Amino acid sequence: MDMDKVNSMDFGDFVEVFGNVIERCPLIAAAVWSQRPFSDLEDLEARFCAFIDVLPQSGQEGILRCHPDLAGRQLQRGTLTAESQREQSAAGLQGLGAEERRRLAELNAQYRARFGFPFVLAARLRDSAAVMSELARRLHCPPAQELRTALGEVKTIGRLRLRDLLGADPARL
Amino acid sequence: MDMDKVNSMDFGDFVEVFGNVIERCPLIAAAVWSQRPFSDLEDLEARFCAFIDVLPQSGQEGILRCHPDLAGRQLQRGTLTAESQREQSAAGLQGLGAEERRRLAELNAQYRARFGFPFVLAARLRDSAAVMSELARRLHCPPAQELRTALGEVKTIGRLRLRDLLGADPARL
Repeated sequence: MDMDKVNSMDFGDFVEVFGNVIERCPLIAAAVWSQRPFSDLEDLEARFCAFIDVLPQSGQEGILRCHPDLAGRQLQRGTLTAESQREQSAAGLQGLGAEERRRLAELNAQYRARFGFPFVLAARLRDSAAVMSELARRLHCPPAQELRTALGEVKTIGRLRLRDLLGADPARL
Repeated sequence: MDMDKVNSMDFGDFVEVFGNVIERCPLIAAAVWSQRPFSDLEDLEARFCAFIDVLPQSGQEGILRCHPDLAGRQLQRGTLTAESQREQSAAGLQGLGAEERRRLAELNAQYRARFGFPFVLAARLRDSAAVMSELARRLHCPPAQELRTALGEVKTIGRLRLRDLLGADPARL
């Protein structure tokens, strides 16, 4: 898909195609449509990131709260969005043993209790060992820093999803 | 459900229960959770409205773009959210004749082309004749005024949905 195609989309098509670039937040794609035309992929990415950056803190936390746990109930039940399913599978989170799953669930619960949002990570850039060690590390970060880190991961996930949709090279990230 | 119950919810439960108070915008419920505890239903309603009010205009338009057309394809295909399905049925939009459906589709398309978002109305407070006449009237309003009107309808829909969820009296609206 090229940018002329993207720029010619009505908002219905745009939200259908880009609505899950930010997990379960079609509102953001729908808002970004106001900024068309986009000059290129980087411009489109920048518009998604800029919208996230201008939200009040509660809205930024809200974005994070729309994300599923990594290796959580939704992965086991098969109720993840297609994008999350693919990303969590790519990190090998479907193949975890019972003990690893239990340990990850425990750390996820501690993280949620401490920060008030779930642990978000661009899983497909990592393997399951890295997911676990990142979670254990970030669990002890100061809250303001952790919010920034988590939003950075949301943006990375969004960039990778945009590159998938536009057929661009994900290795450039 | 009383406010103590609401105030004791973790964000996962809160988003599951209130995620569609604003149509297809779980991000907003997830953001509102940051403002707990809520003193009463009016306070909870006010938090949803306040979040909408502080969004940049593109975000407010984005909320509207997450709404389905009234009596549109999704109603016919049965792919509306449960809440929208109920509301559009209550206005009698499922029982329209072919000619009325054609006329409404035409006006909806004109409205979308003029304003860049779909026609949004708290349908369950109206019958199909009132939906049609309101659409014909609002189609000619100045864009800035129409954005305010449409967001007012979004808030009314949200208030009614909140009252449904909390078992409060919708007649007080």
